Amino acid sequence: MVSVSIIMGSDSDMPVMSQAAGVLEELQIEYEMRILSAHRQTKELIDYLEKAKEKGIKVIIAGAGKAAALPGICASVFPLPVIGVPMKTSDLGGLDSLYSIVQMPTGVPVSTVAINGAKNAALLAARILAVSDENIEVNLTEYNEKMVRSVSMKDQKLQDEGYEVFLNDR
Amino acid sequence: MVSVSIIMGSDSDMPVMSQAAGVLEELQIEYEMRILSAHRQTKELIDYLEKAKEKGIKVIIAGAGKAAALPGICASVFPLPVIGVPMKTSDLGGLDSLYSIVQMPTGVPVSTVAINGAKNAALLAARILAVSDENIEVNLTEYNEKMVRSVSMKDQKLQDEGYEVFLNDR
Amino acid sequence: MVSVSIIMGSDSDMPVMSQAAGVLEELQIEYEMRILSAHRQTKELIDYLEKAKEKGIKVIIAGAGKAAALPGICASVFPLPVIGVPMKTSDLGGLDSLYSIVQMPTGVPVSTVAINGAKNAALLAARILAVSDENIEVNLTEYNEKMVRSVSMKDQKLQDEGYEVFLNDR
Amino acid sequence: MVSVSIIMGSDSDMPVMSQAAGVLEELQIEYEMRILSAHRQTKELIDYLEKAKEKGIKVIIAGAGKAAALPGICASVFPLPVIGVPMKTSDLGGLDSLYSIVQMPTGVPVSTVAINGAKNAALLAARILAVSDENIEVNLTEYNEKMVRSVSMKDQKLQDEGYEVFLNDR
Amino acid sequence: MVSVSIIMGSDSDMPVMSQAAGVLEELQIEYEMRILSAHRQTKELIDYLEKAKEKGIKVIIAGAGKAAALPGICASVFPLPVIGVPMKTSDLGGLDSLYSIVQMPTGVPVSTVAINGAKNAALLAARILAVSDENIEVNLTEYNEKMVRSVSMKDQKLQDEGYEVFLNDR
Amino acid sequence: MVSVSIIMGSDSDMPVMSQAAGVLEELQIEYEMRILSAHRQTKELIDYLEKAKEKGIKVIIAGAGKAAALPGICASVFPLPVIGVPMKTSDLGGLDSLYSIVQMPTGVPVSTVAINGAKNAALLAARILAVSDENIEVNLTEYNEKMVRSVSMKDQKLQDEGYEVFLNDR
Amino acid sequence: MVSVSIIMGSDSDMPVMSQAAGVLEELQIEYEMRILSAHRQTKELIDYLEKAKEKGIKVIIAGAGKAAALPGICASVFPLPVIGVPMKTSDLGGLDSLYSIVQMPTGVPVSTVAINGAKNAALLAARILAVSDENIEVNLTEYNEKMVRSVSMKDQKLQDEGYEVFLNDR
Amino acid sequence: MVSVSIIMGSDSDMPVMSQAAGVLEELQIEYEMRILSAHRQTKELIDYLEKAKEKGIKVIIAGAGKAAALPGICASVFPLPVIGVPMKTSDLGGLDSLYSIVQMPTGVPVSTVAINGAKNAALLAARILAVSDENIEVNLTEYNEKMVRSVSMKDQKLQDEGYEVFLNDR
Repeated sequence: MVSVSIIMGSDSDMPVMSQAAGVLEELQIEYEMRILSAHRQTKELIDYLEKAKEKGIKVIIAGAGKAAALPGICASVFPLPVIGVPMKTSDLGGLDSLYSIVQMPTGVPVSTVAINGAKNAALLAARILAVSDENIEVNLTEYNEKMVRSVSMKDQKLQDEGYEVFLNDR
Repeated sequence: MVSVSIIMGSDSDMPVMSQAAGVLEELQIEYEMRILSAHRQTKELIDYLEKAKEKGIKVIIAGAGKAAALPGICASVFPLPVIGVPMKTSDLGGLDSLYSIVQMPTGVPVSTVAINGAKNAALLAARILAVSDENIEVNLTEYNEKMVRSVSMKDQKLQDEGYEVFLNDR
Repeated sequence: MVSVSIIMGSDSDMPVMSQAAGVLEELQIEYEMRILSAHRQTKELIDYLEKAKEKGIKVIIAGAGKAAALPGICASVFPLPVIGVPMKTSDLGGLDSLYSIVQMPTGVPVSTVAINGAKNAALLAARILAVSDENIEVNLTEYNEKMVRSVSMKDQKLQDEGYEVFLNDR
Repeated sequence: MVSVSIIMGSDSDMPVMSQAAGVLEELQIEYEMRILSAHRQTKELIDYLEKAKEKGIKVIIAGAGKAAALPGICASVFPLPVIGVPMKTSDLGGLDSLYSIVQMPTGVPVSTVAINGAKNAALLAARILAVSDENIEVNLTEYNEKMVRSVSMKDQKLQDEGYEVFLNDR
Repeated sequence: MVSVSIIMGSDSDMPVMSQAAGVLEELQIEYEMRILSAHRQTKELIDYLEKAKEKGIKVIIAGAGKAAALPGICASVFPLPVIGVPMKTSDLGGLDSLYSIVQMPTGVPVSTVAINGAKNAALLAARILAVSDENIEVNLTEYNEKMVRSVSMKDQKLQDEGYEVFLNDR
Repeated sequence: MVSVSIIMGSDSDMPVMSQAAGVLEELQIEYEMRILSAHRQTKELIDYLEKAKEKGIKVIIAGAGKAAALPGICASVFPLPVIGVPMKTSDLGGLDSLYSIVQMPTGVPVSTVAINGAKNAALLAARILAVSDENIEVNLTEYNEKMVRSVSMKDQKLQDEGYEVFLNDR
Repeated sequence: MVSVSIIMGSDSDMPVMSQAAGVLEELQIEYEMRILSAHRQTKELIDYLEKAKEKGIKVIIAGAGKAAALPGICASVFPLPVIGVPMKTSDLGGLDSLYSIVQMPTGVPVSTVAINGAKNAALLAARILAVSDENIEVNLTEYNEKMVRSVSMKDQKLQDEGYEVFLNDR
Repeated sequence: MVSVSIIMGSDSDMPVMSQAAGVLEELQIEYEMRILSAHRQTKELIDYLEKAKEKGIKVIIAGAGKAAALPGICASVFPLPVIGVPMKTSDLGGLDSLYSIVQMPTGVPVSTVAINGAKNAALLAARILAVSDENIEVNLTEYNEKMVRSVSMKDQKLQDEGYEVFLNDR
């Protein structure tokens, strides 16, 4: 059953936001993915959000750029956790997106991750689900161990071969 | 007949936003003023915006701070000009409010004024109405002449009395 | 009859500012376009601005970069709405242009849009004209519906084909 | 049973972080509160974090300022959601704290709220717990309704009495 | 004969800009001081600037805040050096003023000093005049020697009495 | 006789700083050009600066990047005007260079131009020399007229051919 | 024997820089303290720096604000470690000082601590001396243990008395 | 014997951090190099740090990007000097890394160098070791002389051949 919804404000956010989908697949968490603009489809968005919980959605991951209202509107209507992903922007580096998402007024929290941090958004969604789902916690543990092994192997390669070889092989 | 609506996201914005009301009164433009939060009363806000044009509202002035979604949501629903006033914030100086209001995505424009620039928001609303209302243009011209006379009188005082006296009298 | 004037401070602003022209054409709004520098042709600019209203100009769209004085000078001389478009800059990302345009002193408002937001400047000009011109409001409504349909179709494609196909087709 | 841990890096963060405690009390969520510095008590902190889940802790709220490593270290060791609260700083306004908390590397997510956003951190913790605890969702709904009523009453007062009276009464 | 003109955009700039006057007096350089707003009195300003050189003005010191167009407009019309003083602002610390003054487009240079740096503006004007006026160079040398003696005396006091006494006496 | 010295802190600044040389040549002002690092050759630099005035140098143009101490040290030792050119940097866009140059303490002014603004530095040097040299003022007037004609011709081309042709020909 | 020199660019830096002196006293490290401006006393400063090593100085702590050249000039002349302390500034919060100190060009390193971080500068000087002086390492260990005990006692007080009492007692 | 440890949080930091290794080699200082993530391998890192001093490590150079906790954690556990190198980031230019490293709380100092300043980190490590090792000071002096000669030769080439030839040869 679908428990996570990935929403983005524009299809230009897809290259980043699809990374969240990839991580959720790896953790065996079902999700759906939607393109819904807070500024261009306000009512369709609200309609979608009002029905999301009934459909089983437990966490929303919302990615948006510039004056990024999407995550905040999600958090206004949807009663469970909303994770905001600020998109990098070509002029201000994503600082506009970050401020528009993280600086929410009291009463309506958005859980914000790094600029372009879609992978971490998925891992955070998994941690939230893991509070009440042991399978997901097991999957997360495996994911982390794999990640740590990968860093360790790189360190080992560095010890074995030195940094010149290491740099050439990258 | 009321032609301008002044909306603010929180009553803490009132000291700044009431300055817009003062300027509109001086220019003899009728307005209404509402406290409506984009994040806490999304649906009430949309409901209000959908009826605004029928009521005769031609311009909306929307003030909000931090992750300021209010002006953008106004511009999503209301089809005529929306002027956004970014509130100064205690931590980031209002840069968060400014980015959240001015960096709107293509398709949904918000006419943004300076941080805490509520007076200029009212003057901009007046200019917009003046496009099709000569009385307002006349009032604006008088307002500007008064403003210029005030600067000129200060300069004259400076010439007459020197800067030490001028500074003491401030 | 020409009702909008698009002014830019340098021909290097043309790739961005011509997008405003494109949107106005789509909305069937007549415009003229000028290259006039506030700092290099101050008096020619003022001369142009003083005659603009008589010629029927109702809104000015002014684009400029860096220490962007053009929109403010337009708003000093021209009595009706002036929309400022801050140009992206290679060193400061356009933050210099934005501050120079949006932070206008009380009395002389500039309606500021996003960095490089020339399309939104045209849409804002259209909203301003739509206050007293129903044809333009109709054209704006169509423009918006087209925009929404375009987003909806992308979402439908995503639902139908999944994000991998979607990404490959971009 | 205690399900939330509020940790802060210094007792100077208490005036802000105690607001999280206040909200949790209002929502009837049990918590514990600790002062544990990531930089001055690294091993004690890790020891605490390793035992937290066994004790029933499901969410950690970690507040820290400047080069704020606390939330990130919490998220390294504790496997469930960690919410980071960037403290306002006197020199950089809290931008240093915000960057140090939100810009986490891939693999270790921290759920970041606004600068000094301790109340929203508590509400976010409640939303996370509400995913699997209906009582908390009920309490959250009541909390939100109360908040909305409070804004509505302010708007009503504004309509009834006008902004001058409203400003005087603040 | 008056050789320096100090212009400011608003009388609120007087507490800072009067410091420039003080330094010029100390250096025995004659000046005049005007309040002339680039945005509110554009044509009066240009008129003043066109006559300035004939009157003997060799350097203009122009102070302005926020979207500070004054120094740039001075440099557009007046052919000799223009020194810009960015005013500190309450929201953005003066960064808006600084960008609006220093980031001038190619062709129209403004010599920019620090935020609120009116004293250095006067010293810079003196250095410019000193290129062709030996008396001023002599006065500048004396001014600098006095400044250095003042620092040396403080250092001596610190050596003699230690920092605790030094701090108490400040 | 050489009246301007162009100094840069590193040969990596040459592509920008050589633009100052180009403008000075166009204005028929003699200059010399040196690579002298404030941080790597402090004493050689001071030695050079102490002899500069005797050699006839009347203005120094100093370009430097990052923690750019060069212009300030020039202004400490050389008694006449020093113009600072902040170099664009790859990480902070040149904001580090700008702050290090423009925010000089009281007593030691540096005349700062835009990031990478070497051409304007040369024009400012020319204006400073023009205070006491009419030939240079004549050359500056011609330079400006040429610049204005160039903008006017572009505007004329735009009027004649429209923006599509204009864009294609760029 | 004096092994650390604390230099500041202005006596206005004394309230912050004297904190470094306090920490060195606590660690029983002898120091001297000087007021020497890089921009106003360049040659005296260089003279002092050239003799510093012979006098036994092993580390210099240099505090300065705004366009803070002092630490960099110290590192140019003095061959051993130089620690820079960026002073908080009233307009830019100390970001100008930080950039001017930390962004040193390759070849001349300055060891930079936090804005107003004079205490940490002293602790860093102590760590540097501890590389070859075991007594200082012992003193540092005690200093750290005291600091940790202080945090632990605050945490204990919080556990014993709750946060309301804790806040009242602050 | 190895006296310096170069640690980085990710192998993506290697192109920058290997420059520190290169400088240390040139100065004949032995080092080891490790990839150890503060957030992904917290306990392995602490374990390494606890044994570092016994192994003869006297200085740690730690490079990390974004929410860069590595240098701070090194300084928490390792009692001798830790040098932090903030990595440039693609979105915020490295400002996030810089703040996360330089703004350390009182008690735990990190010696911070410029963004991507790995070479200066090595030179700073050498200066620290030179406090008690004359050979290293001799090597540093040679390194510096070589650097100065390189700048001088470039200046000589500029004097001999002019800037056009100089630019072509770069």
